[in-house]
Amino acid sequence: MNSNDPSAAPSKADKATVRRHNLSLVLRTVHDAGEATRAGVAARVGLTRAAVSSLVDQLLTEGFLTEWGKTFSGQAGRPGTALQVARTGPAGLGVEINIDYVTVCVIDLAGTERVRLVERTDNRGAPPATVLARAARLASRAIESATEQRLRPVGAELALPALVSGGSVRQAPNLGWNRVAVEGLFAQALTALHPTHRALPVSADNEANLAAMAELWFGDSDDRVTSFIYLTGEIGIGGALVLNGQLLRGAHGFAGEIGHVVVEPDGPECRCGARGCLEQYAGQAALLRTAGLDESAGLTGLAELERRAREGEPQARNAIDAAGRRLGRVLSGAVNLIDPDAVILGGVFRDLMPWLAPAADEELTARVVSGLWTPGSKRLRASSLSGDAARGAAARVVREVLADPAAYVERVAD
Amino acid sequence: MNSNDPSAAPSKADKATVRRHNLSLVLRTVHDAGEATRAGVAARVGLTRAAVSSLVDQLLTEGFLTEWGKTFSGQAGRPGTALQVARTGPAGLGVEINIDYVTVCVIDLAGTERVRLVERTDNRGAPPATVLARAARLASRAIESATEQRLRPVGAELALPALVSGGSVRQAPNLGWNRVAVEGLFAQALTALHPTHRALPVSADNEANLAAMAELWFGDSDDRVTSFIYLTGEIGIGGALVLNGQLLRGAHGFAGEIGHVVVEPDGPECRCGARGCLEQYAGQAALLRTAGLDESAGLTGLAELERRAREGEPQARNAIDAAGRRLGRVLSGAVNLIDPDAVILGGVFRDLMPWLAPAADEELTARVVSGLWTPGSKRLRASSLSGDAARGAAARVVREVLADPAAYVERVAD
Repeated sequence: MNSNDPSAAPSKADKATVRRHNLSLVLRTVHDAGEATRAGVAARVGLTRAAVSSLVDQLLTEGFLTEWGKTFSGQAGRPGTALQVARTGPAGLGVEINIDYVTVCVIDLAGTERVRLVERTDNRGAPPATVLARAARLASRAIESATEQRLRPVGAELALPALVSGGSVRQAPNLGWNRVAVEGLFAQALTALHPTHRALPVSADNEANLAAMAELWFGDSDDRVTSFIYLTGEIGIGGALVLNGQLLRGAHGFAGEIGHVVVEPDGPECRCGARGCLEQYAGQAALLRTAGLDESAGLTGLAELERRAREGEPQARNAIDAAGRRLGRVLSGAVNLIDPDAVILGGVFRDLMPWLAPAADEELTARVVSGLWTPGSKRLRASSLSGDAARGAAARVVREVLADPAAYVERVAD
Repeated sequence: MNSNDPSAAPSKADKATVRRHNLSLVLRTVHDAGEATRAGVAARVGLTRAAVSSLVDQLLTEGFLTEWGKTFSGQAGRPGTALQVARTGPAGLGVEINIDYVTVCVIDLAGTERVRLVERTDNRGAPPATVLARAARLASRAIESATEQRLRPVGAELALPALVSGGSVRQAPNLGWNRVAVEGLFAQALTALHPTHRALPVSADNEANLAAMAELWFGDSDDRVTSFIYLTGEIGIGGALVLNGQLLRGAHGFAGEIGHVVVEPDGPECRCGARGCLEQYAGQAALLRTAGLDESAGLTGLAELERRAREGEPQARNAIDAAGRRLGRVLSGAVNLIDPDAVILGGVFRDLMPWLAPAADEELTARVVSGLWTPGSKRLRASSLSGDAARGAAARVVREVLADPAAYVERVAD
């Protein structure tokens, strides 16, 4: 019926839109395959070879794809030129601003990390503008290093241990920030360092959200899950929910705050304002304190905790076990609510898995309904080593390029 | 590019698929509008008037639409015939099998409840086949009553206080059921009562899931939310999560089990096998017991509890307050995780709202991060009176008809 309607004939605007969409389709197909021939792409996306060739030519010219050598297709034995996404050109810049460090990384279109800079620094107490200027300096060095590799960051994504919405931090209890317009402040600080550059678009998100996306995009491919609860143990405890490959943001963008689920109604006051939050029992400070270490010892303290646990020191083992038990208890509730494929633990939890996981697993086994959680299940797992919030942030920029390359064609400077 | 590809021309199969899709589009448009003219439908769906007329003719002939009288369009003043969905023909049958009652209802294509039968009966302890046969007898009477109204139930959906997946109950702790093939058993029992009828397709789901869908479809339209946590207080506590209008099912279909989130790690044993679940503190038995009433008194007991609370009897008030506090505590965790628009309380919680809500609200205000929960917020609300699990179940059948009417055209009996 619809096809008899003359108004349904594709207009010029439609054709341009279709081509733009198909450019992304071809680019993503090569990206996901790692390497592909024009014929291979055509077979996969269901366009004609001629159409694919025209799209590939444009992507080559504009620097999104490169071609190299000859490859032999399995079926016909005819050689074809292999296409790959470019290792130069558009890149993503990820900036993780955490309590006691700043990490900046640049990844290329293929997702490979090409620059990583880490600065250990205590960001607590300093004014937000100072911290963001510090991060901008590090980012600026990363951009220089990327430029030397002929990479061109086309956007920056900030990862923060905070409730972030609409480009602003609403609250970052452990940084002591309230209502900070982080995107604007960071962009301003970066522009001040490079007054001649075109301003880089900046966006921001919660660090656990971005670490969870890194897990989804870069995690172990042999046992990939697409619905999971992600927890990252830092000075605070970050959390994120990924359902069917999509981040659950919630009505206000603040979903995933598992660190502030109550474990002891009358427990110690938390920086968030409530009492007895999980963070007060399984955060870094609690872990160190219970183990008899200086709770503000940070990374050194954690290394010591891990060493003691490895040597079987009872107080260290008990401290981690107690944290694991509380973690498992809260996670059992979350699993009963969400029924995910897996629970993934990152940050310090990752390093403490051998002593943390058994207690958490025991609680999960006892408390998840209907015996759905079997002991020693692979559903409780450590995060992969290949992703963190900074890389997730950089990858989000790259994914925007892959989704619409035409929007990122380099214009010659005016 | 794509449009130059001859293989992209729509085939005959495509045209049939498009027409089938458009039949549904037109039917749903009339359904959602309540009443519409052909011109109104054409304007809304973006098809030509001729196309819409042809589709409407088919829907009229096949009994999905009716037309009546003349209406005047506001703009041109020309009269048009008003279309409505048929009040006879295909209908949905919903069957809620709960611990102490069975409810059966039939709704027509417009969503109006046309038959409702309730049987108070204790389903605990009886063999599942006996309970399902009991429900089938009630369903059979509802079908007879529907037939007298020229309605034709085209499917049955069972609602159970159970973990349901793949047509089977995995576990229904409060019924004492384990691994029961409910769909098959119910279909069999119904066919035995009507050996001459064509077998009715039967499916099953968790009762809280279906009550939540009823809330979504039939709830107050002036303040409708599409992301919410739904809790229903029965002998057990059922829960469901609706996110952006979609039920969250989880990896195994068991999401939403908020009744089994732990509140007291060493609390009393729960029927689910764990300890200290919310159900042990805010379920019917706990409410009645704490109020000094017979915990197995069921509906009579609850009426008495409500009466005493209304009169200000302290033990009754305290019992409800204590349950509300535990409920609020668990809900605060769920809100921190999911960040929904609202939390909706149904079942017995609905009736106890005046005394339950303040305590729950206080906990939510204190424990939801970043002051996101403001006291007395409309985000904590009672379920609407117009929906329950039985109606949600019947509505799911009707929605399948609306989604593909062509699959439900009445064939003349062989």
